[in-house]
Amino acid sequence: MTHPDTLTDPADAPVLKRLRARGTWEGRQRTRLTVRDFPPFATGEPERVGGDNSAPTPMELVLAALDGCLAVVIETVAVELGIEVQAIELESEATIDVRGFRGVAGVSPHFDRVATRIELRSDADPTGLAALREATVARCPALNLVRDAGAEVELEWVTAS
Amino acid sequence: MTHPDTLTDPADAPVLKRLRARGTWEGRQRTRLTVRDFPPFATGEPERVGGDNSAPTPMELVLAALDGCLAVVIETVAVELGIEVQAIELESEATIDVRGFRGVAGVSPHFDRVATRIELRSDADPTGLAALREATVARCPALNLVRDAGAEVELEWVTAS
Repeated sequence: MTHPDTLTDPADAPVLKRLRARGTWEGRQRTRLTVRDFPPFATGEPERVGGDNSAPTPMELVLAALDGCLAVVIETVAVELGIEVQAIELESEATIDVRGFRGVAGVSPHFDRVATRIELRSDADPTGLAALREATVARCPALNLVRDAGAEVELEWVTAS
Repeated sequence: MTHPDTLTDPADAPVLKRLRARGTWEGRQRTRLTVRDFPPFATGEPERVGGDNSAPTPMELVLAALDGCLAVVIETVAVELGIEVQAIELESEATIDVRGFRGVAGVSPHFDRVATRIELRSDADPTGLAALREATVARCPALNLVRDAGAEVELEWVTAS
C-alpha cells in the first residue's frame, strides 16, 4: 500500500500536499469564502474604503493565519523536543504601505513589516526553548511566506513558567 | 485636520496602514483567532496529523484570503476603469511540499505553486479586461505576497458576458 504522506519518505522525494479555497464576490468588497466543508466565512473592507465592514480584510486574515501557523508549529516542535507547553498567546501586528495597492510603481502592495509577540507558558530550560524557537522560525509555513516575500519580520518571544 | 489615508497624498510619502490579529492556542493544533471586534474564528489541522479537524488550516486560510483579496482588487480597479462587473467566482489551489514543515533543509515550508481560476461576468471589451487583469496582478496585496515569496503563481481568467 502506498502512503505518500508519512515521515518515512526519503528526504529527496517531494511530499506534496494540495490545498483549495473558493470565493464568491458578494459586492461592496465582501467575498464569501469556503474551505473543504467548513462553514463559510468572509473577507470585507472598512466603510472608509467602500466596504460594509462586515468581516476582516484579506490581509488581516493572512495575519491571523500567521498566528495560527506559529502556534501549530510550536506545538508540533515542542512534542518532538519533549518540551511541555501549557499555553501560547500570539499577537501579530503589520504595516502595509497602501500606495502599493493604489498602483504607485515600486511600492510593494503587501506587508512592509510584521511583528509578532509570542507568549509561551513552559517549564522548559533555556536550551530547549532556544531549540524550539529556532525550529519554529525555520519550519513555520506562514512565517516563511511573509519573510520570503521581503517583509521585515520581528518575533518577540516571552516565556513564563 | 490631518487625514493621512486619502488618495490625495503625495506619491513619495508612505501611507502606512496598521493591521492586528490575536491568537490563543487551544491545544490539539487549534488556535482561536480574533481580528478587531469581529466574531472569533479558528485554524486547525486534520486528525491525520494530530488535530481535531475543526477548522481550516492556517495555509488554507491564506489561500482563502488570496481569493478575497483578488475579488476586492478586481472590484476596485473595475470602478476606476469604468468597467461593470456582475459576478466574480474564484478558486485557488496550491501545493506545499510538507518536507519543509518537517524540517528538511533547503525545502521551503510554504507554497510551492498557487493556481487561481478567476471567473468574471462582465460586458467589458477586451482592452478594458486586459487593463483590469494587469492592474489586479500589479496591485493585489495577497497575490504579490505569494509571488514575492517565490511561489509559482498561475492565474486563469475566464470571462463570460
